[in-house]
Amino acid sequence: MLPWSVDLAGRIDEQVVVSDVLRGNPLGDPHERPLWVYLPPGYDDEPERRYPSVYVIQGYTGHLAMWRNRTAYRQPFPELADAVFARGEAPPLIVVYVDAWTAYGGSQFVDSPGTGRYHTYLCDEVVPFVDARYRTLAAPAHRGISGKSSGGFGAMITPMLRPDLFGALATHAGDALYELCYIKEFGDAARHLRSYGGDIQRWWADFRGRTAFTKEEDQLLLMLLGVSACFSAGEDGTPELPFDPVTGELRPDVWQRWLDWDPVRMVPAYADALRGLRGVWIDAGTRDQWYLDLGAEAFRRALREVGVSEDVVAFELFDATHTAIDYRYPLSLAWLAQRLAPDA
Amino acid sequence: MLPWSVDLAGRIDEQVVVSDVLRGNPLGDPHERPLWVYLPPGYDDEPERRYPSVYVIQGYTGHLAMWRNRTAYRQPFPELADAVFARGEAPPLIVVYVDAWTAYGGSQFVDSPGTGRYHTYLCDEVVPFVDARYRTLAAPAHRGISGKSSGGFGAMITPMLRPDLFGALATHAGDALYELCYIKEFGDAARHLRSYGGDIQRWWADFRGRTAFTKEEDQLLLMLLGVSACFSAGEDGTPELPFDPVTGELRPDVWQRWLDWDPVRMVPAYADALRGLRGVWIDAGTRDQWYLDLGAEAFRRALREVGVSEDVVAFELFDATHTAIDYRYPLSLAWLAQRLAPDA
Amino acid sequence: MLPWSVDLAGRIDEQVVVSDVLRGNPLGDPHERPLWVYLPPGYDDEPERRYPSVYVIQGYTGHLAMWRNRTAYRQPFPELADAVFARGEAPPLIVVYVDAWTAYGGSQFVDSPGTGRYHTYLCDEVVPFVDARYRTLAAPAHRGISGKSSGGFGAMITPMLRPDLFGALATHAGDALYELCYIKEFGDAARHLRSYGGDIQRWWADFRGRTAFTKEEDQLLLMLLGVSACFSAGEDGTPELPFDPVTGELRPDVWQRWLDWDPVRMVPAYADALRGLRGVWIDAGTRDQWYLDLGAEAFRRALREVGVSEDVVAFELFDATHTAIDYRYPLSLAWLAQRLAPDA
Amino acid sequence: MLPWSVDLAGRIDEQVVVSDVLRGNPLGDPHERPLWVYLPPGYDDEPERRYPSVYVIQGYTGHLAMWRNRTAYRQPFPELADAVFARGEAPPLIVVYVDAWTAYGGSQFVDSPGTGRYHTYLCDEVVPFVDARYRTLAAPAHRGISGKSSGGFGAMITPMLRPDLFGALATHAGDALYELCYIKEFGDAARHLRSYGGDIQRWWADFRGRTAFTKEEDQLLLMLLGVSACFSAGEDGTPELPFDPVTGELRPDVWQRWLDWDPVRMVPAYADALRGLRGVWIDAGTRDQWYLDLGAEAFRRALREVGVSEDVVAFELFDATHTAIDYRYPLSLAWLAQRLAPDA
Repeated sequence: MLPWSVDLAGRIDEQVVVSDVLRGNPLGDPHERPLWVYLPPGYDDEPERRYPSVYVIQGYTGHLAMWRNRTAYRQPFPELADAVFARGEAPPLIVVYVDAWTAYGGSQFVDSPGTGRYHTYLCDEVVPFVDARYRTLAAPAHRGISGKSSGGFGAMITPMLRPDLFGALATHAGDALYELCYIKEFGDAARHLRSYGGDIQRWWADFRGRTAFTKEEDQLLLMLLGVSACFSAGEDGTPELPFDPVTGELRPDVWQRWLDWDPVRMVPAYADALRGLRGVWIDAGTRDQWYLDLGAEAFRRALREVGVSEDVVAFELFDATHTAIDYRYPLSLAWLAQRLAPDA
Repeated sequence: MLPWSVDLAGRIDEQVVVSDVLRGNPLGDPHERPLWVYLPPGYDDEPERRYPSVYVIQGYTGHLAMWRNRTAYRQPFPELADAVFARGEAPPLIVVYVDAWTAYGGSQFVDSPGTGRYHTYLCDEVVPFVDARYRTLAAPAHRGISGKSSGGFGAMITPMLRPDLFGALATHAGDALYELCYIKEFGDAARHLRSYGGDIQRWWADFRGRTAFTKEEDQLLLMLLGVSACFSAGEDGTPELPFDPVTGELRPDVWQRWLDWDPVRMVPAYADALRGLRGVWIDAGTRDQWYLDLGAEAFRRALREVGVSEDVVAFELFDATHTAIDYRYPLSLAWLAQRLAPDA
Repeated sequence: MLPWSVDLAGRIDEQVVVSDVLRGNPLGDPHERPLWVYLPPGYDDEPERRYPSVYVIQGYTGHLAMWRNRTAYRQPFPELADAVFARGEAPPLIVVYVDAWTAYGGSQFVDSPGTGRYHTYLCDEVVPFVDARYRTLAAPAHRGISGKSSGGFGAMITPMLRPDLFGALATHAGDALYELCYIKEFGDAARHLRSYGGDIQRWWADFRGRTAFTKEEDQLLLMLLGVSACFSAGEDGTPELPFDPVTGELRPDVWQRWLDWDPVRMVPAYADALRGLRGVWIDAGTRDQWYLDLGAEAFRRALREVGVSEDVVAFELFDATHTAIDYRYPLSLAWLAQRLAPDA
Repeated sequence: MLPWSVDLAGRIDEQVVVSDVLRGNPLGDPHERPLWVYLPPGYDDEPERRYPSVYVIQGYTGHLAMWRNRTAYRQPFPELADAVFARGEAPPLIVVYVDAWTAYGGSQFVDSPGTGRYHTYLCDEVVPFVDARYRTLAAPAHRGISGKSSGGFGAMITPMLRPDLFGALATHAGDALYELCYIKEFGDAARHLRSYGGDIQRWWADFRGRTAFTKEEDQLLLMLLGVSACFSAGEDGTPELPFDPVTGELRPDVWQRWLDWDPVRMVPAYADALRGLRGVWIDAGTRDQWYLDLGAEAFRRALREVGVSEDVVAFELFDATHTAIDYRYPLSLAWLAQRLAPDA
């Protein structure tokens, strides 16, 4: 494998979506968003054929151009995805790469007064944009969503909220079981905030005025500020932390707003939607730094408890941390392609 | 400082308490317990003089004989305590070293069907035993309690429960703010329990049949099993874990039993007792592995919120982890001696 | 700062160099190599003007396309370099991005029967290629070289070997002081090799047959195999490890071949070349995992001891590890631009 | 197992040795030293019977009284050793617990102008002291030596130097293969010494004036200062570090003095002594922080290469770090007892 470049068997259309719902978003992020649409090999040769589609969303601090990033001895996912279809390992489908970046590093793919209406953007603007321009099979039975980490979270919740759109999902180390993935961070954050008088806005002002990620606390505080903007912003958009910045104590009311977005806890309320899914891929590394292997176990159990058939669930824990697990994405994509194929 | 030995200025009486309340305890631990009573220099010279007393309790897996342990370049606490009085740094008092060991490594100084009635043992057997045999000032204004880690926890809760006995306390990195000190452990424990089919009793059987602490999981699982025995045993004494051993999810009802023993959460219900204290020493290392620095902050704040005067509180965070902080104990002992002195 | 893209003030020419010296290299790597030549703003407007040049080389497992990689909240170095000139912070120069990738992940920029003649490729093919096609100031006083980690190593040794070509250098956390940066790794490697019968070729066969970097040992063994191919290959090209794979013991003769490539140890033999340099930038993070801050100190001292003037040396240790220090590269580039300017 | 106390089947005589060779030692340490002599069960019942003996020495910062230290769920070694004989698992022998503490935390059991003549003390004072007072089999065939870490080092070198005294040894994670166990520490030490102007004596003065081990660097700098005092003191006793305190570079001449004490490197010069041993026990944990598992492998290989028969060697690597491996000592003691028994 040479490291520098590869020709795709299919092709990627680089689009820009001019969003209405993101116009005037609270963080001043662009409302014109890049979107990549991957068309599999043969797409142009069969002008009548329609294809399933999978929407791919990213983890926290991910943005669209990062899909091009190259590392030694591995290929970027878009190339690996192309290879799945080029080698005939799965029925062809359209892969839609969505950007939901914000100034805080992410949107969690929800609507929030703190960041903007990224859930609506995805569901009511991007999906119609794609269906209007490409030969998709525009029905939930043939439309899936996939992501890792925060993207895995988005992939779990979006089909719960919109079963009319998505009929399958894949979550790789998706955020879940918030007592384990988040609470420990609050202790570390409170310690870091001692240097900022307990005021995360002071850190944020500092962060924006210097080279990012040159302080140990940057990654953690950015994530907590951003997720607070997504899950627990005030009506004016101000992020409210779910913990006391001095003692680290849970603030029960704010924390409850986070828990309301815990996929494990959401399952019962969305049982009908979940029982209608054609495929649910769940995986995580057994040494995930945020215990998302346990989140995966808990999500699987919650699905079972509301009657989701084990036949539609693919579950695997593998030996890894949260890092460098991109090689898993083609596995779920191929599996989703089987599940979403017109004759599946 | 030579490492091998030292002569005390005072002296230690090694006693055995024959306990009624520990007889037939559920773990089959001895009901005859060692007890050390330290008498300060001059005690034998003034046969009419009465002294304040401080009860010293230990952290998890501590037992009485460990007070003799020596390490390089440091002296055991009983020698350091003796030096406080030998040098006249504080008014003399009697120090009572209590043993509350159990087969699980500790008792948390509570009464439990899982371990035994160690709270009652301490309050209704040890205290009268000492008062009957030594010239104490047998009143709460002159009786304190001190400990580290689980011993710090015991030092916080015992005066809440028994203000008729204890009028001052010192907690060094005492267990508090359970969402931060415990929940993370549940994730690690669930992972470890994969090797035992999710059954902590299988681990326990294994642990007892081999050299202790030769497996990475031993320390953590021992502590969780033992604290479950203390806080959330069934009526038959069986420890119930506060988390699902497969997913790590909190079991809300069992977890609530733990939270009921969180000193931070206990404060409002025991506000009267706490407002009556003559001295509260709170400290912890800023890098404590269980975030007990934040527990210390939260306990201090809870005291303030119920009206405990800042005049009676000594609070300090210092640069350390949870380990090797025994050099702090003489500081609190000297401070308590001032607070408990007859003319204070 | 938006994360997705930026327009350069200057421009990048993407070239391919057809190498003679790499043809038939022992690893079967391509002899046609990508090369990027960055031309600063104004280059096309002043067709007579000639410019200094800086050759930028990469760390281990780096390859040319990785310069495009984007991360959140930071810009790729080629954009930051462009901004230096766009903002007029330094006199303009030409930046040449060189690729010296091999199947083992790198070449250390030396000639070796184990990997190929990458030193010769750089000096006798790339430099003339650039000078022939671009308006460079083709003299060592106006030509520099810069890199990080293995690239910093290359930036230290290449001007020693070829003072006729390079008159300034910048090393960011460059490999140096091999007793500290390498020997510890040998112990870890020997432990990892227990799973491979002490045979690194068995690991290599395994590595090539699966997803890279899914085993803990991959990064380390790859580096040691590759650097052995660079520094201590047999005449037939077989890499020879500098340590016994069972015991971790140094193999003195092979280890000496590595030491012969230690920049700190090379300085005395190349004192004349080094005394002729116009600028030497040396930096590293104080927590560098390979102790390259100490390597930087040692290299600086070695320069001083052979009489390199402190006036031409810029030295800084900063609070960082070996990771994510790309924000330092524009600093050295601007400094080199001052040093290499025609009127400097 | 109750944690508090145990009655031995044998008994321990607590002696004091008044040493001539330690009188006036350079650190002002006592020349009257504690010595424990353990007599196995039956010793007093068979007044004519003579016994083999094993001398037990300690790791760095160990001193005699630490053998009494108790921890939860484990027994002190003297109790475990007693149990070996009480249960008849091995032929009885006399165990001699030697103290070689110094103000720097240890002596490495060598003679040095930096610390004192501890090798001579052990060989020419302690051994005769014991043989004169107890019914030993006073011949090397029946006398062994055992230790862990620095004590393991002492157990390796003492029989090399004095085959007329010791005929068997046990080394648990003994210091060996110095390039792996020491060099990495030099990098860390140089970093720590930045806070002390590169002067370890400034650290030492600071260390002695405050509570020990309250700074991260204390353990490491103490060990390096102390071992320098043992291996590379000047004639006036001043410890000379084997590395440059600013750059971490090896100082070849001083480092060579350390290497001269590397058991692996000493083997060829003492081949005759080693070939005469009746038993050599070598073990270490596979995750030893100082790579002493590799040191163990290298020592074993060195023995093999000089012709020590594999029949007399017991070798084992086990899953552990350097810490908490005291449960291994009874295993080697029982094995040595077999080897040293009069009819072995």
